[in-house]
Amino acid sequence: MNPHSPKSDKRLRILESAEKVFAQKGFFGAKVADIAEDAGVADGTIYLYFRSKDELLISLFEVQMERVHEELERELAGASDPEDRLRRFMRAYVRLIQQNPHAAEVITIELRQSEKFMKQYSNPRFAEFLKRLAAIIDDGQQQGRFRKELPAPIVARALFGALDELALWWVSGRGEKLDLDKAAGWLGDLMLQGLVTKSDR
Amino acid sequence: MNPHSPKSDKRLRILESAEKVFAQKGFFGAKVADIAEDAGVADGTIYLYFRSKDELLISLFEVQMERVHEELERELAGASDPEDRLRRFMRAYVRLIQQNPHAAEVITIELRQSEKFMKQYSNPRFAEFLKRLAAIIDDGQQQGRFRKELPAPIVARALFGALDELALWWVSGRGEKLDLDKAAGWLGDLMLQGLVTKSDR
Repeated sequence: MNPHSPKSDKRLRILESAEKVFAQKGFFGAKVADIAEDAGVADGTIYLYFRSKDELLISLFEVQMERVHEELERELAGASDPEDRLRRFMRAYVRLIQQNPHAAEVITIELRQSEKFMKQYSNPRFAEFLKRLAAIIDDGQQQGRFRKELPAPIVARALFGALDELALWWVSGRGEKLDLDKAAGWLGDLMLQGLVTKSDR
Repeated sequence: MNPHSPKSDKRLRILESAEKVFAQKGFFGAKVADIAEDAGVADGTIYLYFRSKDELLISLFEVQMERVHEELERELAGASDPEDRLRRFMRAYVRLIQQNPHAAEVITIELRQSEKFMKQYSNPRFAEFLKRLAAIIDDGQQQGRFRKELPAPIVARALFGALDELALWWVSGRGEKLDLDKAAGWLGDLMLQGLVTKSDR
């Protein structure tokens, strides 16, 4: 599809409205009619693009993850030092959360409300995201900078969980006074000292 | 209420059935009637104890958190070394997840599906749980064993997020081959090396 065709514009507009409405009303509270109204289209039009509310949420997630991958691409370009790459990875993720609080709310909270998403969707983009993070760690291990005894996929998953929890805290408003940049910086300090080999300390 | 009275037995039976049904059908898929049937009580009886399905879920969470606190109490009794205490904390949490996979599924997945829980419930028991974890870290800092520059509440939150993510992976079945004990051990190694002061390394 030509990305500038009116058809893809409408799809994008629906997705943007869905993001807004899900963040405001929650996934279960949101009605397709609310999304249609916000997007300025008829209810039935939405079903031309998405089969269900679950599918809307999953598409939204995929658009977000695409943004994440583009941002990571940009941020990591030219950086070869594994510690520097890990820091950049975390910074890019945090920046996206801060720049898109609605999207962040959808990803950290609403997404888990979709039964279909949690239990059936194999989530290839998220798997790719974790693989990317694990590759940075693995690379540091190959270069002898990071300890080899900690499996890279486990470290990647744990690091993502820690980042996601800080983001959830920030997004839910309970960590209102939380400075997410600083928090991510401390997490980076903690993880990097935890990862480096003795000769590097 | 006398904990051995038939009344509290019925309440407990309803909670146990709710845990099972939520894990099987998901929070939104579960009907109060399913829970009543499993518990062998009339639908209306459930409303004598709980005002809504949300309230059932929150009560379930509170019972679980009580179990967590009792287990932590037992595990930490007599341990004074901060590194040892942190390891024990993580071990106790993982053991509870493994021993109560239904409860773990409810906590890690279904709980986030309750709008009310995520947005309105101030969650005092979870706050207490995090405070307990932060106190271990703070204690290590006071003793000069852990680095003081990393704020204990941030580290506690990050560590919980990492543990929770590994638990979610295990519970969702996608990490079927994941050895949760080993994974938590690696996470402990990572975090402890990350936390210790230079003189302790």
